[in-house]
Amino acid sequence: MRGTVLYGPGDVRFEDREDPRIIEPADAVIRMAATCVCGSDLWPYRGLQPVNGPTPMGHEYCGIVEEVGSAVRSVKPGQFVIGSFATSDNTCPNCRIGYQSSCVQREFMSRAQAPMLRVPLADGTLVAMPGGLPPDDLVPSLLACSDVLGTGWFAADAANVKPGATVVVVGDGAVGLLGVLSAKQMGAERIIAMSRHQSRQLLAREFGATDIVTARGDEGVARIKEMTRGVGADSVLECVGTQESMMQAIQSTRPGGFVAYVGVPHGVELKGEQLFFSHVHLHGGPAPVRRYLPTLIELVLSGQINPGKVFDLVLPLDQVAEGYRAMDERRAIKTLLRP
Amino acid sequence: MRGTVLYGPGDVRFEDREDPRIIEPADAVIRMAATCVCGSDLWPYRGLQPVNGPTPMGHEYCGIVEEVGSAVRSVKPGQFVIGSFATSDNTCPNCRIGYQSSCVQREFMSRAQAPMLRVPLADGTLVAMPGGLPPDDLVPSLLACSDVLGTGWFAADAANVKPGATVVVVGDGAVGLLGVLSAKQMGAERIIAMSRHQSRQLLAREFGATDIVTARGDEGVARIKEMTRGVGADSVLECVGTQESMMQAIQSTRPGGFVAYVGVPHGVELKGEQLFFSHVHLHGGPAPVRRYLPTLIELVLSGQINPGKVFDLVLPLDQVAEGYRAMDERRAIKTLLRP
Repeated sequence: MRGTVLYGPGDVRFEDREDPRIIEPADAVIRMAATCVCGSDLWPYRGLQPVNGPTPMGHEYCGIVEEVGSAVRSVKPGQFVIGSFATSDNTCPNCRIGYQSSCVQREFMSRAQAPMLRVPLADGTLVAMPGGLPPDDLVPSLLACSDVLGTGWFAADAANVKPGATVVVVGDGAVGLLGVLSAKQMGAERIIAMSRHQSRQLLAREFGATDIVTARGDEGVARIKEMTRGVGADSVLECVGTQESMMQAIQSTRPGGFVAYVGVPHGVELKGEQLFFSHVHLHGGPAPVRRYLPTLIELVLSGQINPGKVFDLVLPLDQVAEGYRAMDERRAIKTLLRP
Repeated sequence: MRGTVLYGPGDVRFEDREDPRIIEPADAVIRMAATCVCGSDLWPYRGLQPVNGPTPMGHEYCGIVEEVGSAVRSVKPGQFVIGSFATSDNTCPNCRIGYQSSCVQREFMSRAQAPMLRVPLADGTLVAMPGGLPPDDLVPSLLACSDVLGTGWFAADAANVKPGATVVVVGDGAVGLLGVLSAKQMGAERIIAMSRHQSRQLLAREFGATDIVTARGDEGVARIKEMTRGVGADSVLECVGTQESMMQAIQSTRPGGFVAYVGVPHGVELKGEQLFFSHVHLHGGPAPVRRYLPTLIELVLSGQINPGKVFDLVLPLDQVAEGYRAMDERRAIKTLLRP
């Protein structure tokens, strides 16, 4: 088969790779229904993270099980499945407490921008669709559960979003936009999206944002304080991963409020004393998507949410390089790829 | 009157100062029953924090109200009162949500190592004892509520200590020891105190520690991992404030677990990426003691807790310099001063 390989900054190729196959008894191989490009793929694409030789790419996936290893019990060939970007056995102490993305057997997926994919720890990683194959128009929203929605959902959960809360979302990428959707689902009363791009502002509004703030940095913080009786928001979702966005998030939060951060921090350093006097709760990390998958799939199937709207560019898989370019140049929020 | 003034590293003097008096209508003046030396007083005493000219010292206090300003409604002369080290109006948005130590009108107290003390925002800061004057033997435990117990209690609360939890306490100063007591009160099943000083180990045991670990740093972390099925503790209380203790706390916590930090961090820097993959919850800051005061006073009066045991040295107030020396040299855990 052919699959996506990143050779270096700006150099994405769709080229021959070995077909995936069962290696361990707990493996499954799936045939991709759809995959996509993640905001985190842009870090190495932009040269902001080292690329050590040709690197197969992609960690968001859904599709039909082709084959399973001898130890697999909970999924079988022919089923439509969705899995997390992090594999998990779903039985270790970390999994049992809901942190499957810190499973003691965790591997981060990295070969999903391809027509076929090997998934280790299939029983603990994959969730089979209830009721057989989904209608094709739901595939984008089901794919979104694999990471981008799961991550936005974790951000809202980790930021303790409760009914009636005032929420700020820093970052208008796909994760931030789905953080807005998630906060809305959790009952937030006021959702302030920080965004200066019109198409993203519109989608944020559609997902439930009540206010848009275009200011950034200190000016953005001052604007949030003005809007919150001078004290800051209850919950702030940091969906970027830079020093500026992290500090903006912390300073926009009221004492005793909650900051969640879900983008891998790049070059972020927090000064202990500043954090101390901010009085915020801070929680984040790789989203334990597996914990949320059954809930999110149900919300999609019942039509209560339509997270697939973040995909504003759909390309055939072999045009993946254009998919990266469009996101890098911010012509697209998120690119969906169809084999 | 005479009061305590820090002139520079190691230079504590008990000297003439102006008598405190009512300045604002919300003030009270109290006559001290007891005060004490705080671990945080040792930072400037040791030259680890700048001293900008002669600085009146002390922020832990309890005593009898001598006089109140014209606006004070909830306390009156003759009552025995306890207050937090941070003043609060107890009505602003931060106070109402339980973060009185981030009150919009907050001042940090700093003149309490003296026979008399002016307390601003008396209505929101002070709690009057129910039932008149307390027996003298309860004064140390009541004084402890003012900061050291309130801070240990906040540490346990911020670290989400729940019935059945496995808790680690980093730091065997008075705050750490009362963090042990607090975790015990909150139902922790296993409480591991990190300590290498025998007298402190004994008190930790008395307060509820089930295990003592003497190892520190990476070795200490490894020991905690061994004791917790390889995953780390549910809740870790960081009661020191150094880079080493903070990293030890974070690394001793399970993914999804909770780290509380209550000592003012000195030179602590957290790397975003490391924090991200640790998957911990982090919360801390100046303890909102006022939130807990009614509960803590009740626990003391009913004899359920005896936090005053952390005072292993009692001196007349005019020997305050020896009180600092004894704590600096670790001859005393905490010095109580009687006018």
